[in-house]
Amino acid sequence: MSGFVSFVGSGPGDPELLTLKAVNRMKQADAILFDDLSSGPILTHARAGADLVGVGKRAGRPSPKQDHVSRLLVDYAQTGARVVRLKSGDGGMFGRLEEELIALRAAGIGFEIVPGVPSACAAAAAAGIPLTRRLTARRVQFVTGHDIAGKLPEDLNLAALADPLATTVVFMGKRTFPRMVAMLVDHGLPRATPALLAEAVSTPEQTLERSTLGQLADRLEAEVGNAPALILYGPLAEA
Amino acid sequence: MSGFVSFVGSGPGDPELLTLKAVNRMKQADAILFDDLSSGPILTHARAGADLVGVGKRAGRPSPKQDHVSRLLVDYAQTGARVVRLKSGDGGMFGRLEEELIALRAAGIGFEIVPGVPSACAAAAAAGIPLTRRLTARRVQFVTGHDIAGKLPEDLNLAALADPLATTVVFMGKRTFPRMVAMLVDHGLPRATPALLAEAVSTPEQTLERSTLGQLADRLEAEVGNAPALILYGPLAEA
Repeated sequence: MSGFVSFVGSGPGDPELLTLKAVNRMKQADAILFDDLSSGPILTHARAGADLVGVGKRAGRPSPKQDHVSRLLVDYAQTGARVVRLKSGDGGMFGRLEEELIALRAAGIGFEIVPGVPSACAAAAAAGIPLTRRLTARRVQFVTGHDIAGKLPEDLNLAALADPLATTVVFMGKRTFPRMVAMLVDHGLPRATPALLAEAVSTPEQTLERSTLGQLADRLEAEVGNAPALILYGPLAEA
Repeated sequence: MSGFVSFVGSGPGDPELLTLKAVNRMKQADAILFDDLSSGPILTHARAGADLVGVGKRAGRPSPKQDHVSRLLVDYAQTGARVVRLKSGDGGMFGRLEEELIALRAAGIGFEIVPGVPSACAAAAAAGIPLTRRLTARRVQFVTGHDIAGKLPEDLNLAALADPLATTVVFMGKRTFPRMVAMLVDHGLPRATPALLAEAVSTPEQTLERSTLGQLADRLEAEVGNAPALILYGPLAEA
């Protein structure tokens, strides 16, 4: 008896930004494993009697137990259950999807991936900023601001990240942003480059703060805490 | 009397990949302006009596009449209508959103942007490929393969695009891909780099072709036609 796992992108947080397919998969699921940001009102689509299992790890906490999540996923599926693995945003971006796919393949369990609305797209939409611009931003890039140890990754491609003709979105990079900006500025990107800090995108707690690279780096230098946030910078259109 | 425009990302094509919000906005719309890739079954959510206006321009045709689309959008809104402007994928990426926002602002018309599932995320999901990988792809980038004249853009950032540690998705780049690959290889990216050609993603006509940079460039050199397609390349995980 072997179950089936649907990896489902749950979007940025607003339950109305779930896809119809996400809702349909949740309604049919025997078990739903969800992250911190895929919880709350999103889970109202689960059927009565479904197992709802939180596997989130809050930002700033010690190294996530990814092995444990993969193990749990396999165990649930091996009971023959229809399992939904909810991942916030689009599961294929910074969602540790690969580790879970490898575990399922090793166990011979079938799966599908249902894409979702990336939080980066929702942040840009909320701020009225197109991620691409016809002449000034023909490239958009998404990067993570921390590695497994929570530090700024060593292998940043500065020629890519300091490009004034690209829009960049930094995931999970609030704490490391001051150091990243110092490197970008060393590489020639002006401190006056427009920037946007977006938190709790598409939820009632959403905040959007327009700034510049330099100002935002200075401010975050003094800030405590590391709530999930996105930082956009580049030739951002004015609101 | 001034209407309101909802820019709505309609996702990659599968009507089940519409968000709940997209469906709700379509149900309430007096007029829906849609692109080629947002047509068909997606429009079944329109209410009876709504004006459905195709403003698409097929790939490969002469320069799109963007001014005309913006004009039409303003005209509809100025009748007091609730207008939905459907854009395939996420409207903020390669959707010419900015030009339409500028026209609405100039006319003093209110708007909102509803993000959608990008076709790039759907292509990766269909192929079982995570766009990011924990150690080998901490950056993902989306670029367009053609400029306004349909040519390969002159200002490609090759240090960014030839980075072996990033996943790249090329939009509308099938025809220019052989030339792009020649430049990437000159810049040091191996011809053996994994690549994927994805067409008609998430529709019944979907095709996914796994290849390498070099093989795909050779094949596309000989191909006629320029159907909408996405090309992924980089350290793509194996299926």
